[in-house]
Amino acid sequence: MNAVEGFNHSVFKRDMIMKRITLLLVGVATLAGVVALTATTSRHVTAQEATPIFVTEIPARYRDWRFISVAHEEGELNDIRTILGNDKAINAYRAGKLPFPEGTIIARIAWRYVPSEENNKIFGREQSFVPGEQPPWYLQFMVKDSKKYAATGGWGYAQFDKDGKPGPESDMKKCFPCHQAIKDRDFVFTRYAP
Amino acid sequence: MNAVEGFNHSVFKRDMIMKRITLLLVGVATLAGVVALTATTSRHVTAQEATPIFVTEIPARYRDWRFISVAHEEGELNDIRTILGNDKAINAYRAGKLPFPEGTIIARIAWRYVPSEENNKIFGREQSFVPGEQPPWYLQFMVKDSKKYAATGGWGYAQFDKDGKPGPESDMKKCFPCHQAIKDRDFVFTRYAP
Repeated sequence: MNAVEGFNHSVFKRDMIMKRITLLLVGVATLAGVVALTATTSRHVTAQEATPIFVTEIPARYRDWRFISVAHEEGELNDIRTILGNDKAINAYRAGKLPFPEGTIIARIAWRYVPSEENNKIFGREQSFVPGEQPPWYLQFMVKDSKKYAATGGWGYAQFDKDGKPGPESDMKKCFPCHQAIKDRDFVFTRYAP
Repeated sequence: MNAVEGFNHSVFKRDMIMKRITLLLVGVATLAGVVALTATTSRHVTAQEATPIFVTEIPARYRDWRFISVAHEEGELNDIRTILGNDKAINAYRAGKLPFPEGTIIARIAWRYVPSEENNKIFGREQSFVPGEQPPWYLQFMVKDSKKYAATGGWGYAQFDKDGKPGPESDMKKCFPCHQAIKDRDFVFTRYAP
Protein backbone atom coordinates (compact mmCIF):
# COMPACT_ATOMS: atom_id res chain seq x y z
CA MET A 1 0.00 0.00 0.00
CA ASN A 2 1.52 3.32 -0.98
CA ALA A 3 1.11 6.64 0.79
CA VAL A 4 -1.87 7.69 -1.31
CA GLU A 5 -3.79 4.44 -0.82
CA GLY A 6 -3.10 4.59 2.91
CA PHE A 7 -4.61 8.06 3.18
CA ASN A 8 -7.18 8.13 5.96
CA HIS A 9 -10.33 9.29 4.19
CA SER A 10 -12.60 9.28 7.26
CA VAL A 11 -10.30 11.65 9.16
CA PHE A 12 -9.94 13.75 6.03
CA LYS A 13 -13.70 13.92 5.60
CA ARG A 14 -14.26 14.83 9.25
CA ASP A 15 -11.73 17.63 8.96
CA MET A 16 -13.36 18.85 5.79
CA ILE A 17 -16.75 18.82 7.46
CA MET A 18 -15.44 20.83 10.43
CA LYS A 19 -13.80 23.24 8.03
CA ARG A 20 -17.07 23.66 6.18
CA ILE A 21 -19.04 24.30 9.36
CA THR A 22 -16.51 26.92 10.41
CA LEU A 23 -16.58 28.57 7.02
CA LEU A 24 -20.36 28.53 6.96
CA LEU A 25 -20.57 30.13 10.39
CA VAL A 26 -18.09 32.78 9.31
CA GLY A 27 -20.29 33.23 6.27
CA VAL A 28 -23.38 33.73 8.40
CA ALA A 29 -21.60 36.33 10.51
CA THR A 30 -20.70 38.15 7.34
CA LEU A 31 -24.28 38.10 6.15
CA ALA A 32 -25.13 41.38 7.86
CA GLY A 33 -23.08 43.10 5.18
CA VAL A 34 -23.07 40.77 2.21
CA VAL A 35 -26.12 38.65 1.72
CA ALA A 36 -26.80 37.54 -1.79
CA LEU A 37 -23.68 35.43 -2.24
CA THR A 38 -24.48 32.36 -0.17
CA ALA A 39 -24.32 29.98 -3.09
CA THR A 40 -21.03 31.47 -4.27
CA THR A 41 -19.47 31.10 -0.82
CA SER A 42 -20.20 27.42 -0.51
CA ARG A 43 -19.06 26.67 -4.04
CA HIS A 44 -15.91 28.65 -3.52
CA VAL A 45 -14.79 26.29 -0.78
CA THR A 46 -14.99 23.38 -3.16
CA ALA A 47 -12.84 25.10 -5.74
CA GLN A 48 -10.14 25.95 -3.23
CA GLU A 49 -10.08 22.41 -1.89
CA ALA A 50 -9.81 20.93 -5.35
CA THR A 51 -6.81 22.87 -6.60
CA PRO A 52 -3.89 21.43 -4.59
CA ILE A 53 -4.57 17.81 -5.49
CA PHE A 54 -5.04 18.50 -9.18
CA VAL A 55 -3.29 16.60 -12.00
CA THR A 56 -3.31 13.23 -10.25
CA GLU A 57 -6.94 13.56 -9.20
CA ILE A 58 -10.00 14.96 -10.90
CA PRO A 59 -11.13 18.22 -9.26
CA ALA A 60 -13.86 17.56 -6.71
CA ARG A 61 -17.42 18.12 -7.89
CA TYR A 62 -16.43 19.51 -11.28
CA ARG A 63 -19.78 18.27 -12.62
CA ASP A 64 -21.49 20.79 -10.32
CA TRP A 65 -19.59 23.71 -11.81
CA ARG A 66 -21.39 26.36 -13.77
CA PHE A 67 -21.84 26.40 -17.50
CA ILE A 68 -19.53 28.36 -19.83
CA SER A 69 -20.29 27.05 -23.29
CA VAL A 70 -20.79 24.11 -25.60
CA ALA A 71 -19.23 22.97 -28.87
CA HIS A 72 -19.20 20.28 -31.50
CA GLU A 73 -15.87 19.12 -32.86
CA GLU A 74 -15.91 17.23 -36.15
CA GLY A 75 -13.22 15.05 -37.69
CA GLU A 76 -11.26 12.60 -35.57
CA LEU A 77 -12.69 13.99 -32.36
CA ASN A 78 -16.32 13.75 -33.51
CA ASP A 79 -17.62 14.84 -30.14
CA ILE A 80 -20.14 17.13 -28.50
CA ARG A 81 -18.82 18.84 -25.43
CA THR A 82 -19.59 21.18 -22.61
CA ILE A 83 -17.23 23.59 -20.93
CA LEU A 84 -17.76 24.27 -17.24
CA GLY A 85 -15.81 26.48 -14.86
CA ASN A 86 -15.11 26.79 -11.16
CA ASP A 87 -16.16 30.03 -9.47
CA LYS A 88 -12.96 31.85 -10.37
CA ALA A 89 -13.45 30.96 -14.02
CA ILE A 90 -17.10 31.99 -14.11
CA ASN A 91 -16.51 35.25 -12.28
CA ALA A 92 -13.66 36.22 -14.59
CA TYR A 93 -15.67 35.33 -17.70
CA ARG A 94 -18.68 37.33 -16.56
CA ALA A 95 -16.55 40.31 -15.62
CA GLY A 96 -14.75 40.05 -18.96
CA LYS A 97 -11.52 40.19 -17.00
CA LEU A 98 -8.22 38.83 -18.28
CA PRO A 99 -5.92 37.20 -17.36
CA PHE A 100 -7.85 34.57 -15.39
CA PRO A 101 -6.91 34.58 -11.69
CA GLU A 102 -4.75 31.96 -10.00
CA GLY A 103 -6.77 28.86 -9.17
CA THR A 104 -9.06 29.13 -12.17
CA ILE A 105 -10.05 25.72 -13.49
CA ILE A 106 -11.85 25.17 -16.76
CA ALA A 107 -13.32 21.72 -17.43
CA ARG A 108 -14.10 20.19 -20.81
CA ILE A 109 -16.37 17.14 -20.81
CA ALA A 110 -16.86 15.38 -24.15
CA TRP A 111 -19.10 12.65 -25.49
CA ARG A 112 -19.37 10.86 -28.81
CA TYR A 113 -21.53 12.88 -31.19
CA VAL A 114 -24.45 10.63 -32.05
CA PRO A 115 -27.90 11.05 -33.61
CA SER A 116 -30.81 10.64 -31.21
CA GLU A 117 -32.99 8.01 -32.84
CA GLU A 118 -35.57 8.53 -30.15
CA ASN A 119 -35.87 12.26 -30.80
CA ASN A 120 -35.77 11.89 -34.57
CA LYS A 121 -38.58 9.36 -34.52
CA ILE A 122 -40.78 11.71 -32.51
CA PHE A 123 -39.95 14.80 -34.59
CA GLY A 124 -40.34 12.83 -37.83
CA ARG A 125 -36.98 13.92 -39.25
CA GLU A 126 -33.21 13.52 -38.80
CA GLN A 127 -32.58 16.45 -36.54
CA SER A 128 -31.14 15.74 -33.09
CA PHE A 129 -27.55 15.02 -32.15
CA VAL A 130 -26.82 14.21 -28.53
CA PRO A 131 -24.07 12.88 -26.24
CA GLY A 132 -23.26 9.21 -26.78
CA GLU A 133 -20.57 7.20 -25.04
CA GLN A 134 -17.56 8.66 -23.30
CA PRO A 135 -14.58 8.95 -25.66
CA PRO A 136 -11.07 7.81 -24.62
CA TRP A 137 -10.22 11.23 -23.20
CA TYR A 138 -13.51 12.03 -21.58
CA LEU A 139 -12.32 14.83 -19.32
CA GLN A 140 -9.89 17.69 -19.78
CA PHE A 141 -8.92 20.51 -17.46
CA MET A 142 -6.93 23.73 -17.63
CA VAL A 143 -5.61 24.94 -14.28
CA LYS A 144 -4.20 28.41 -13.77
CA ASP A 145 -1.01 28.45 -11.74
CA SER A 146 1.36 31.02 -13.15
CA LYS A 147 4.41 29.82 -11.24
CA LYS A 148 3.98 26.10 -11.57
CA TYR A 149 3.04 26.23 -15.24
CA ALA A 150 5.10 29.25 -16.31
CA ALA A 151 6.44 27.33 -19.31
CA THR A 152 2.96 26.86 -20.78
CA GLY A 153 1.46 30.32 -20.36
CA GLY A 154 0.54 29.83 -16.71
CA TRP A 155 -1.83 26.97 -17.43
CA GLY A 156 -1.50 23.33 -16.57
CA TYR A 157 -3.28 20.90 -18.87
CA ALA A 158 -4.58 17.49 -17.87
CA GLN A 159 -6.87 14.82 -19.19
CA PHE A 160 -8.55 11.77 -17.74
CA ASP A 161 -10.18 8.76 -19.30
CA LYS A 162 -13.69 7.62 -18.45
CA ASP A 163 -12.35 5.56 -15.53
CA GLY A 164 -10.65 8.62 -14.05
CA LYS A 165 -7.13 7.57 -15.04
CA PRO A 166 -4.95 10.60 -15.83
CA GLY A 167 -3.22 10.87 -19.18
CA PRO A 168 0.60 10.98 -19.32
CA GLU A 169 2.27 14.29 -18.51
CA SER A 170 3.73 14.31 -22.01
CA ASP A 171 0.21 15.06 -23.29
CA MET A 172 0.50 18.53 -21.78
CA LYS A 173 3.06 19.33 -24.43
CA LYS A 174 0.50 18.68 -27.14
CA CYS A 175 -1.93 21.27 -25.74
CA PHE A 176 0.15 24.40 -25.53
CA PRO A 177 1.23 24.65 -29.21
CA CYS A 178 -2.41 25.27 -30.18
CA HIS A 179 -3.42 27.27 -27.11
CA GLN A 180 -0.56 29.72 -27.49
CA ALA A 181 -2.18 30.99 -30.69
CA ILE A 182 -4.80 32.69 -28.50
CA LYS A 183 -2.46 34.37 -26.07
CA ASP A 184 -4.62 37.50 -26.32
CA ARG A 185 -7.41 35.71 -24.48
CA ASP A 186 -5.07 34.18 -21.90
CA PHE A 187 -4.73 30.98 -23.97
CA VAL A 188 -8.37 29.97 -23.54
CA PHE A 189 -10.28 28.97 -26.68
CA THR A 190 -13.76 28.96 -25.24
CA ARG A 191 -15.76 32.17 -25.15
CA TYR A 192 -18.59 32.55 -22.66
CA ALA A 193 -21.85 31.66 -24.45
CA PRO A 194 -23.94 34.85 -24.60
CA MET B 1 -48.06 52.81 -14.58
CA ASN B 2 -49.60 49.39 -14.18
CA ALA B 3 -49.46 47.15 -11.13
CA VAL B 4 -46.32 45.34 -12.26
CA GLU B 5 -44.37 48.50 -13.02
CA GLY B 6 -45.43 49.94 -9.66
CA PHE B 7 -44.09 46.91 -7.79
CA ASN B 8 -41.78 48.05 -5.01
CA HIS B 9 -38.54 46.24 -5.77
CA SER B 10 -36.56 47.55 -2.80
CA VAL B 11 -39.15 46.25 -0.32
CA PHE B 12 -39.30 42.98 -2.26
CA LYS B 13 -35.51 42.65 -2.18
CA ARG B 14 -35.37 43.40 1.54
CA ASP B 15 -37.98 40.75 2.20
CA MET B 16 -36.09 38.26 0.07
CA ILE B 17 -32.88 39.03 1.92
CA MET B 18 -34.58 38.52 5.30
CA LYS B 19 -36.06 35.28 4.01
CA ARG B 20 -32.63 34.11 2.91
CA ILE B 21 -31.04 34.94 6.24
CA THR B 22 -33.79 33.02 8.04
CA LEU B 23 -33.46 30.05 5.75
CA LEU B 24 -29.69 30.05 6.07
CA LEU B 25 -29.91 30.14 9.87
CA VAL B 26 -32.33 27.24 9.79
CA GLY B 27 -29.81 25.52 7.53
CA VAL B 28 -26.99 26.07 10.00
CA ALA B 29 -29.07 24.66 12.85
CA THR B 30 -29.66 21.57 10.73
CA LEU B 31 -25.95 21.16 10.09
CA ALA B 32 -25.39 19.08 13.23
CA GLY B 33 -27.16 16.25 11.42
CA VAL B 34 -26.67 16.97 7.75
CA VAL B 35 -23.42 18.59 6.81
CA ALA B 36 -22.20 17.95 3.33
CA LEU B 37 -25.00 19.75 1.55
CA THR B 38 -24.11 23.38 2.11
CA ALA B 39 -23.93 24.22 -1.56
CA THR B 40 -27.20 22.43 -2.21
CA THR B 41 -28.96 24.31 0.58
CA SER B 42 -28.12 27.73 -0.70
CA ARG B 43 -28.99 26.83 -4.27
CA HIS B 44 -32.23 25.28 -3.16
CA VAL B 45 -33.46 28.60 -1.79
CA THR B 46 -33.06 30.17 -5.20
CA ALA B 47 -35.09 27.48 -6.89
CA GLN B 48 -37.94 27.76 -4.41
CA GLU B 49 -38.08 31.50 -4.78
CA ALA B 50 -38.08 31.31 -8.53
CA THR B 51 -41.00 28.95 -8.96
CA PRO B 52 -44.00 31.08 -7.93
CA ILE B 53 -43.25 33.95 -10.30
CA PHE B 54 -42.54 31.67 -13.24
CA VAL B 55 -44.12 32.05 -16.71
CA THR B 56 -44.11 35.85 -16.68
CA GLU B 57 -40.54 36.05 -15.39
CA ILE B 58 -37.41 34.05 -16.13
CA PRO B 59 -36.41 31.88 -13.12
CA ALA B 60 -33.79 33.64 -11.03
CA ARG B 61 -30.17 32.65 -11.66
CA TYR B 62 -31.02 29.87 -14.10
CA ARG B 63 -27.60 30.42 -15.70
CA ASP B 64 -26.03 29.23 -12.44
CA TRP B 65 -27.90 25.92 -12.55
CA ARG B 66 -26.04 22.69 -13.00
CA PHE B 67 -25.41 20.96 -16.28
CA ILE B 68 -27.64 18.14 -17.56
CA SER B 69 -26.72 17.73 -21.21
CA VAL B 70 -26.08 19.31 -24.58
CA ALA B 71 -27.49 18.82 -28.07
CA HIS B 72 -27.35 20.04 -31.63
CA GLU B 73 -30.62 20.41 -33.52
CA GLU B 74 -30.41 20.61 -37.29
CA GLY B 75 -33.00 21.83 -39.78
CA GLU B 76 -35.02 24.94 -39.09
CA LEU B 77 -33.76 25.17 -35.54
CA ASN B 78 -30.07 24.90 -36.52
CA ASP B 79 -28.94 25.49 -32.96
CA ILE B 80 -26.52 24.21 -30.35
CA ARG B 81 -28.00 24.08 -26.90
CA THR B 82 -27.38 23.29 -23.30
CA ILE B 83 -29.85 21.87 -20.82
CA LEU B 84 -29.49 22.94 -17.20
CA GLY B 85 -31.57 22.04 -14.17
CA ASN B 86 -32.42 23.42 -10.77
CA ASP B 87 -31.49 21.32 -7.74
CA LYS B 88 -34.66 19.26 -7.86
CA ALA B 89 -34.01 18.40 -11.49
CA ILE B 90 -30.37 17.47 -10.93
CA ASN B 91 -31.08 15.38 -7.84
CA ALA B 92 -33.83 13.46 -9.61
CA TYR B 93 -31.68 12.86 -12.68
CA ARG B 94 -28.73 11.62 -10.62
CA ALA B 95 -30.94 9.37 -8.54
CA GLY B 96 -32.60 8.07 -11.71
CA LYS B 97 -35.91 8.79 -10.03
CA LEU B 98 -39.12 9.41 -11.94
CA PRO B 99 -41.44 11.25 -11.97
CA PHE B 100 -39.58 14.50 -11.33
CA PRO B 101 -40.68 16.17 -8.07
CA GLU B 102 -42.89 19.24 -7.86
CA GLY B 103 -40.87 22.41 -8.42
CA THR B 104 -38.47 20.82 -10.87
CA ILE B 105 -37.38 23.28 -13.54
CA ILE B 106 -35.42 22.30 -16.63
CA ALA B 107 -33.89 25.07 -18.72
CA ARG B 108 -32.93 24.91 -22.39
CA ILE B 109 -30.64 27.66 -23.68
CA ALA B 110 -29.98 27.72 -27.42
CA TRP B 111 -27.65 29.56 -29.76
CA ARG B 112 -27.21 29.64 -33.51
CA TYR B 113 -24.96 26.79 -34.61
CA VAL B 114 -21.99 28.45 -36.29
CA PRO B 115 -18.48 27.41 -37.31
CA SER B 116 -15.67 28.88 -35.25
CA GLU B 117 -13.40 30.51 -37.79
CA GLU B 118 -10.95 31.31 -35.05
CA ASN B 119 -10.65 27.68 -33.91
CA ASN B 120 -10.59 26.29 -37.45
CA LYS B 121 -7.76 28.60 -38.43
CA ILE B 122 -5.68 27.44 -35.47
CA PHE B 123 -6.44 23.75 -35.96
CA GLY B 124 -5.89 24.04 -39.71
CA ARG B 125 -9.20 22.38 -40.62
CA GLU B 126 -12.98 22.90 -40.57
CA GLN B 127 -13.73 21.29 -37.27
CA SER B 128 -15.31 23.50 -34.58
CA PHE B 129 -18.93 24.53 -34.23
CA VAL B 130 -19.81 26.87 -31.40
CA PRO B 131 -22.64 29.08 -30.09
CA GLY B 132 -23.41 32.08 -32.27
CA GLU B 133 -26.15 34.64 -31.76
CA GLN B 134 -29.22 34.09 -29.68
CA PRO B 135 -32.11 32.74 -31.77
CA PRO B 136 -35.65 34.18 -31.53
CA TRP B 137 -36.60 31.76 -28.75
CA TYR B 138 -33.39 31.84 -26.81
CA LEU B 139 -34.72 30.35 -23.57
CA GLN B 140 -37.16 27.57 -22.79
CA PHE B 141 -38.27 26.10 -19.48
CA MET B 142 -40.29 23.14 -18.28
CA VAL B 143 -41.77 23.57 -14.82
CA LYS B 144 -43.23 20.69 -12.84
CA ASP B 145 -46.52 21.56 -11.16
CA SER B 146 -48.86 18.59 -11.35
CA LYS B 147 -51.97 20.50 -10.34
CA LYS B 148 -51.47 23.67 -12.31
CA TYR B 149 -50.38 21.89 -15.47
CA ALA B 150 -52.44 18.70 -15.13
CA ALA B 151 -53.62 19.04 -18.74
CA THR B 152 -50.07 18.83 -20.10
CA GLY B 153 -48.62 15.95 -18.10
CA GLY B 154 -47.86 18.04 -15.02
CA TRP B 155 -45.42 20.28 -16.86
CA GLY B 156 -45.76 23.93 -17.77
CA TYR B 157 -43.85 25.07 -20.82
CA ALA B 158 -42.56 28.57 -21.42
CA GLN B 159 -40.18 30.35 -23.71
CA PHE B 160 -38.53 33.75 -23.74
CA ASP B 161 -36.80 35.74 -26.40
CA LYS B 162 -33.32 37.19 -26.00
CA ASP B 163 -34.76 40.33 -24.41
CA GLY B 164 -36.57 38.26 -21.78
CA LYS B 165 -40.01 38.70 -23.29
CA PRO B 166 -42.20 35.62 -22.71
CA GLY B 167 -43.80 33.83 -25.63
CA PRO B 168 -47.59 33.66 -25.88
CA GLU B 169 -49.35 31.05 -23.74
CA SER B 170 -50.65 29.45 -26.94
CA ASP B 171 -47.07 28.23 -27.56
CA MET B 172 -47.48 25.82 -24.66
CA LYS B 173 -49.92 23.87 -26.77
CA LYS B 174 -47.23 23.26 -29.37
CA CYS B 175 -44.90 21.62 -26.82
CA PHE B 176 -47.01 18.89 -25.32
CA PRO B 177 -47.93 16.98 -28.52
CA CYS B 178 -44.26 16.01 -28.94
CA HIS B 179 -43.42 15.66 -25.25
CA GLN B 180 -46.29 13.26 -24.61
CA ALA B 181 -44.54 10.70 -26.81
CA ILE B 182 -42.04 10.20 -23.97
CA LYS B 183 -44.51 9.78 -21.15
CA ASP B 184 -42.35 6.90 -19.85
CA ARG B 185 -39.61 9.36 -18.90
CA ASP B 186 -42.06 11.86 -17.41
CA PHE B 187 -42.30 13.78 -20.71
CA VAL B 188 -38.65 14.91 -20.64
CA PHE B 189 -36.60 14.40 -23.80
CA THR B 190 -33.17 15.09 -22.35
CA ARG B 191 -31.21 12.29 -20.73
CA TYR B 192 -28.51 13.11 -18.21
CA ALA B 193 -25.17 13.12 -20.09
CA PRO B 194 -23.10 10.24 -18.66
